[in-house]
Amino acid sequence: MIRRIDHIGIAVRDLDKAVALYRDTLGLKSLGLETVESEGVRVALLEVGESRIELLTPLKPGEGPIGKFLEARGEGVHHVCLGVEGIGKSIAALTEVGLPFVGAAPRLGAHGCMVAFLHPKATCGVLIELSERPSP
Amino acid sequence: MIRRIDHIGIAVRDLDKAVALYRDTLGLKSLGLETVESEGVRVALLEVGESRIELLTPLKPGEGPIGKFLEARGEGVHHVCLGVEGIGKSIAALTEVGLPFVGAAPRLGAHGCMVAFLHPKATCGVLIELSERPSP
Repeated sequence: MIRRIDHIGIAVRDLDKAVALYRDTLGLKSLGLETVESEGVRVALLEVGESRIELLTPLKPGEGPIGKFLEARGEGVHHVCLGVEGIGKSIAALTEVGLPFVGAAPRLGAHGCMVAFLHPKATCGVLIELSERPSP
Repeated sequence: MIRRIDHIGIAVRDLDKAVALYRDTLGLKSLGLETVESEGVRVALLEVGESRIELLTPLKPGEGPIGKFLEARGEGVHHVCLGVEGIGKSIAALTEVGLPFVGAAPRLGAHGCMVAFLHPKATCGVLIELSERPSP
């Protein structure tokens, strides 16, 4: 069911500085910026092979999941997103074997994707997002 | 110069349990297990698209970089490895713009790869490994 690493979500304090690092210094192609009000974040996406780096910064310091993560843990990897086909079946199968999801699963995420988050307590400390991209 | 996410390194306390999660529950293909005495770790590799998940556990609790990471931070993402072509040129270019490397760069890593680690202070809290796979 899992096809690729869809993206790695990285919480950063200074989005401009982080974009400069990944785009200008490391040479990744920028796929643009987006504000996701519902999550309280500003997001920059960069392409790397079949995957993406997602840089996340809170709209207001200390607020929303990324703001709280930065206060508790500092900058770093916030989540790993695995790209799946058939997210409904994946969620059913993982629920069947007892894996807990955080919040509604699936729900509509950025870029029209359907997403679901596995609780990091059940996944060796990694917040794992499952994501299915919309049909082209 | 960067071609793909080569792998995501995840520090875990119980390698068998972590392999069961990623291989049996999430359905990733196992590429085998390896002991890297020089790093003090036992490693499991799993395939996901063009990338890999690398599960790392210390040979002795609290020892080596992974043992110390687990004591300080708990389980979770330890590093992100970007696959490059021409690692020598990459290191020279990144050194030129002032990015600091941790330890010798490049050096021989697992599976015959040449690797180098960027210091997380310069990369938004993420320990970034650059890796070039050996010619086939």
